[in-house]
Amino acid sequence: MKISIIGSGNVATHIAKALNLAGVEIAQIWSFHYENAQILAKLVNAKAVKELNDLNSGSDICIIAVKDDAIPAIVYQLKDYKGLLAHTSGAVDLGVFEGHTSDYGVFYPLQTFSKQKELDFSKVPLCLEAKNANVLKELSALASLLSKNIYEIDSEKRKILHLSAVFACNFTNHLYVLAQQILAHYEIDFDIIRPLIEETAHKVQTALPLNVQTGPAIRNDQQTLAKHEALLQEMPQLLEIYRILSESIKKNR
Amino acid sequence: MKISIIGSGNVATHIAKALNLAGVEIAQIWSFHYENAQILAKLVNAKAVKELNDLNSGSDICIIAVKDDAIPAIVYQLKDYKGLLAHTSGAVDLGVFEGHTSDYGVFYPLQTFSKQKELDFSKVPLCLEAKNANVLKELSALASLLSKNIYEIDSEKRKILHLSAVFACNFTNHLYVLAQQILAHYEIDFDIIRPLIEETAHKVQTALPLNVQTGPAIRNDQQTLAKHEALLQEMPQLLEIYRILSESIKKNR
Repeated sequence: MKISIIGSGNVATHIAKALNLAGVEIAQIWSFHYENAQILAKLVNAKAVKELNDLNSGSDICIIAVKDDAIPAIVYQLKDYKGLLAHTSGAVDLGVFEGHTSDYGVFYPLQTFSKQKELDFSKVPLCLEAKNANVLKELSALASLLSKNIYEIDSEKRKILHLSAVFACNFTNHLYVLAQQILAHYEIDFDIIRPLIEETAHKVQTALPLNVQTGPAIRNDQQTLAKHEALLQEMPQLLEIYRILSESIKKNR
Repeated sequence: MKISIIGSGNVATHIAKALNLAGVEIAQIWSFHYENAQILAKLVNAKAVKELNDLNSGSDICIIAVKDDAIPAIVYQLKDYKGLLAHTSGAVDLGVFEGHTSDYGVFYPLQTFSKQKELDFSKVPLCLEAKNANVLKELSALASLLSKNIYEIDSEKRKILHLSAVFACNFTNHLYVLAQQILAHYEIDFDIIRPLIEETAHKVQTALPLNVQTGPAIRNDQQTLAKHEALLQEMPQLLEIYRILSESIKKNR
């Protein structure tokens, strides 16, 4: 099995490195920026190509790991590609391939990737969707080389997963940003709160979050809530978020 | 050094177990519910006592790990205690002890504890505050037996820490709850999102959260934001939170 990769961003990089580590041959890499394709290609013993047309042969599966709004144009340009096409997006429908190619699917890793941060790919949930059973089999074979967590998820459920990931990851990280802002305002180092952040996430690896909710809102501790709101008077944006999330916690008691 | 403990909740339990593990003798434990004091005492080779007055002798430091609003009454009742008194609250001022006892301080562990969840206490940040240098020395000696992360933090900064912990822990966990609600609504197992939650927290152990923010809001990806809002039409409370947090992320770009 030979793979081609389109893209050189966070997702493309992590998938390429994981494939390389698993001993899968990566034939070619194309990126909007040729220099980035070269950098990634060097990392994973692949060949960077300048033209999308050059991908038309030499691989069995082509993984499209680019920004959502770039996918349709890429698919259109790859209409002569002979192998299986799969994109890695949480939000783009399987239908994006229809009429443009014969074998296609989705290979969506439900994880947050940064180039500079290594991670254990074997724990990354891989959400697969495919045109038919044969394609699914082929994508599953590839996925099983990379991860132990493989799910078959259709386009509708994938969108829901992507939305819930915004809450669990993007919004969560933003709360870390706000915590850091509060600390910085009072010249307290972010380091002191890092173990708390890690343990909060660690707790729900075995428990359900509703069962381990703590803090003044779930206790309906009016005194502490009032004290905190007073401390946030000079930060109206944070005050609004404090109130809305506290109300939401109370409603879910 | 002998310790007494007041309380049998999450904080009291974790401190008692960590002290016991470190070979520190726990003399007595008192709790509002005698049965709970007995359960904890059994775990850590201590003696449960029925009356607060029984704590008046036999230990050098008494750690008060009860709910914030119960602290003043406990302090008042312990006015004849000969040793050092320390509470474990993030939000209660050092002044709560003033006029009631001679040696006092604060021993605040900045962590989220659940009785049923074990954790490595050596990484728990312990925030100390003391009436004077002697008391600080004594609390530091105790703290260093339990943790490598010891900070001297005054009452004002401790309140800020507590507030930022609400954002980084309590609100974060609530976002996990909301993610779970979305998934449950579409009959998707929470398991699939657990690795993402863990990695999101893991990332900011070395990076600053502002530098690793991802998602549609930070990219100002209007199309995805609109799609997500459409998916949340039937969940108005989540829609409001989605909008406010997305706006806040955009403002912090």
